[in-house]
Amino acid sequence: MDGSHWVGVKAIAQEMGRRGHKVTVVIPEISIRMGPGEHYDTLTFPVPYDQAYIESVMATNKDVIKRSSQSFTEKIRTKFSQVKRIAGFLHITAESLLFNDSLISHLAEQNFDAVLTDPMVPTGSLIARKLGIPTINLLRGIPCSLDIKSAGCPSPPSYVPRFFTRYTDKMSFKERTVNTLVAFLEPLLCRLMFWYFDEIAYRFLGEEIGVAEVLSDSAIWLLRMDFTLEFPRPIMPNMVLVGGINCNVRHPLPEDLESWVSGEHGFVVFTLGTMVSELPEETTAIFLDAFRQIPQKVIWRYSGKVPDGVPENVKLMKWVPQNDLLAHSGARAFITHAGSHGLFEGLCHAVPMVMVPLGGDQPDNAERLASREVGVVLDIYSITTESLLWGLNEVINDTRYKENIQTLSALHRDRPVDPLDLSVYWTEYVMRHKGAKHLRSAVHDLNWFQYFSLDVLALLATVVLVVVILSVQCLKLFIRKLGRKRKQD
Amino acid sequence: MDGSHWVGVKAIAQEMGRRGHKVTVVIPEISIRMGPGEHYDTLTFPVPYDQAYIESVMATNKDVIKRSSQSFTEKIRTKFSQVKRIAGFLHITAESLLFNDSLISHLAEQNFDAVLTDPMVPTGSLIARKLGIPTINLLRGIPCSLDIKSAGCPSPPSYVPRFFTRYTDKMSFKERTVNTLVAFLEPLLCRLMFWYFDEIAYRFLGEEIGVAEVLSDSAIWLLRMDFTLEFPRPIMPNMVLVGGINCNVRHPLPEDLESWVSGEHGFVVFTLGTMVSELPEETTAIFLDAFRQIPQKVIWRYSGKVPDGVPENVKLMKWVPQNDLLAHSGARAFITHAGSHGLFEGLCHAVPMVMVPLGGDQPDNAERLASREVGVVLDIYSITTESLLWGLNEVINDTRYKENIQTLSALHRDRPVDPLDLSVYWTEYVMRHKGAKHLRSAVHDLNWFQYFSLDVLALLATVVLVVVILSVQCLKLFIRKLGRKRKQD
Repeated sequence: MDGSHWVGVKAIAQEMGRRGHKVTVVIPEISIRMGPGEHYDTLTFPVPYDQAYIESVMATNKDVIKRSSQSFTEKIRTKFSQVKRIAGFLHITAESLLFNDSLISHLAEQNFDAVLTDPMVPTGSLIARKLGIPTINLLRGIPCSLDIKSAGCPSPPSYVPRFFTRYTDKMSFKERTVNTLVAFLEPLLCRLMFWYFDEIAYRFLGEEIGVAEVLSDSAIWLLRMDFTLEFPRPIMPNMVLVGGINCNVRHPLPEDLESWVSGEHGFVVFTLGTMVSELPEETTAIFLDAFRQIPQKVIWRYSGKVPDGVPENVKLMKWVPQNDLLAHSGARAFITHAGSHGLFEGLCHAVPMVMVPLGGDQPDNAERLASREVGVVLDIYSITTESLLWGLNEVINDTRYKENIQTLSALHRDRPVDPLDLSVYWTEYVMRHKGAKHLRSAVHDLNWFQYFSLDVLALLATVVLVVVILSVQCLKLFIRKLGRKRKQD
Repeated sequence: MDGSHWVGVKAIAQEMGRRGHKVTVVIPEISIRMGPGEHYDTLTFPVPYDQAYIESVMATNKDVIKRSSQSFTEKIRTKFSQVKRIAGFLHITAESLLFNDSLISHLAEQNFDAVLTDPMVPTGSLIARKLGIPTINLLRGIPCSLDIKSAGCPSPPSYVPRFFTRYTDKMSFKERTVNTLVAFLEPLLCRLMFWYFDEIAYRFLGEEIGVAEVLSDSAIWLLRMDFTLEFPRPIMPNMVLVGGINCNVRHPLPEDLESWVSGEHGFVVFTLGTMVSELPEETTAIFLDAFRQIPQKVIWRYSGKVPDGVPENVKLMKWVPQNDLLAHSGARAFITHAGSHGLFEGLCHAVPMVMVPLGGDQPDNAERLASREVGVVLDIYSITTESLLWGLNEVINDTRYKENIQTLSALHRDRPVDPLDLSVYWTEYVMRHKGAKHLRSAVHDLNWFQYFSLDVLALLATVVLVVVILSVQCLKLFIRKLGRKRKQD
């Protein structure tokens, strides 16, 4: 997985290598941000596209943020074509790896002890199955809950809010109804998301098996989750929570940046993640207009064309050391798209947030933190200078937000084992024991009506019904006999 | 909680004290085995019984093992009178503490940060609620699953075997039916087990609240469970698994014992836990007869009258260093009543087991380990010299048992944090953060039909029904009109 998904995989790969394991990372020749690192080898495979194609796929993110002039159908069309482009890109990449016979045989010869992969794109899982290697999954979650389903984990829709609903764990009757409907639709969504991979799985593995079944064989699920961000919900024995994996990786700021950010009013960090590097002109103007009116300095990760009229307190940078900036004592607010990595960094360093979610899990993430009153959510499509100023003013000047996030941050950082160490531990565990079969629940041997005991309930209901009917019949017979007897008397 | 329940509480109390916390253990003046230890203070309260009373309650355990001469109704009567005696003992002890006003006010004045308790007897939980102190529970499990219910944890009867059923996680349809029925009966069992405590709760707290509700406020559940013994099942975020808390506490054997156990054939360790120190004469004779026929030496924890004809290879001792003996390389087999502490020690040191469960969770525990083929189960009520010899021969001479338990032991010992350290960590966590509210699931705000979304399903079913009926009516109307029109034509 590319993009932000790569961050965690790279961190674990590097740490595993540093501890003396032989780590081989298999990546496409051309990618958004995947590449070599410390302590691991890379093995690249050719892909039938070039950097320009990737950039064109990425650029669709900007189209999606285009402001509200679009009609509803136009918006849907834009969204749909974006999803189609991204899916096409993922499928081509997966096929380029899976059907590269010489590479697959080369991998088979290495006798790997384990595969670490993000199963959101199940390429790694398919290779692991083909080569008979136990799998460790590192992921944030799959929107149709395929991860939860494949791990056999209960997820009652009565208090576990579904993806895209923006609900919390406390839902009204109406919300619970919608949430239950979404839960019913999840299998359909999974079909839509994975039908092509199901087909690839059949072609690659030569067995009648879907992605869900392949994933259900995973040894360990490293979930980039934490209950300071997520709401409490059931988990399974082979699920390990490693949210905030990069919190402690911290470096001092470069000298020029350090001197620029220093000042009595502190500064604001503004990034929209790796997938969006620039905004439509009118949105940019709104942000600049708001920034002009605050005393804080603003560091904005912005890699597009530099707009006119950038105020003095704003610094546009193609790349920012986000974690180090947030760790700085001068950080007053964090304007973020509410991607999980950014949120965990903000949470780690207790910086209140103004969240402008763009898509994916971001609107849900944002609502979760907003429900804990550690930040505010603004709609990027209808944002105005006033709403942005209101948001910044709230989180910077109302001390409640800072206090709340300090409390939440203390809880988030208070864990028996550092998430990166824990990830490495369970990866090594799978290598040592050739899997973790004793943690795999027996739920996988049941079909859905057995799982919900519907067959047992049907039997019990039948027994109760028969007993009731027989009793009533006996009673009737008895009353009739009694009546007859009386007549005879 | 006294007896084996005390072992874990004491270990944590000592370790907390060693780390510099002020630990006060509140215990009755007279008890089975509770008492002072290192690094903690004890506070005793008077109870209206003496040591002889406790011994008479304990002696009922021996009665229960009386051999099969008893008829079924007699057995039930014996069992019932035993349960009644134990319950009476627990209730008197609880009331002596809760209604000791000066002690309770003294406790209130101490401003404790946390209460550590075994909620199987909810005295500690009631005091914690009264004084408004967050609670850490340390327990093996409550037979009616009140712990699971109070933690809001899903427990599907389709693959989570219930207490007393002796089932594994792979059940036939018949077994699933029985298991589901037991699950249905659990609330009733809870009523039976806790009705008196519900009444005490009302008297002590002065609020209309039951034990279940008091427990649902617990901050952290330290469960003496491990998935090498238990079958994989869902857990909740505030449940922490600390099975095998005493595994690493190890000392060398006393010199005389060391020299006695040494020998080419190794030795067998035989204990039946703290609750049973002697057996009926005829059962003792069977054991001695079997031991006479094996080349191994046998160390038997036995505190009753020494029987005649004890063979040379058998050593009866009032107390044995069980964990240190099992850790010895000469240990060939462990004859145990399958109490959880003993099993975890056997598992920790990879000693195959002959299990003779007596009651409580022991038959379930025994079946669990037997299903992993690390030991055999014998029925203490119908045991014979032959069956015992068969069992010992199996686990000592069939290398499969030793290999299996070595694999299972390696999995059991391979944990990111030592269970005792983990217990202390979460206890300190609760003290640092004054509870762990963010780990408490929203399931507690739902009633049972909301939890199972039954209200939502009823609405959805109604909607579907109305739509179907309306469609059928419309279709009828349409057909009728069509028919009339045709007639008119």
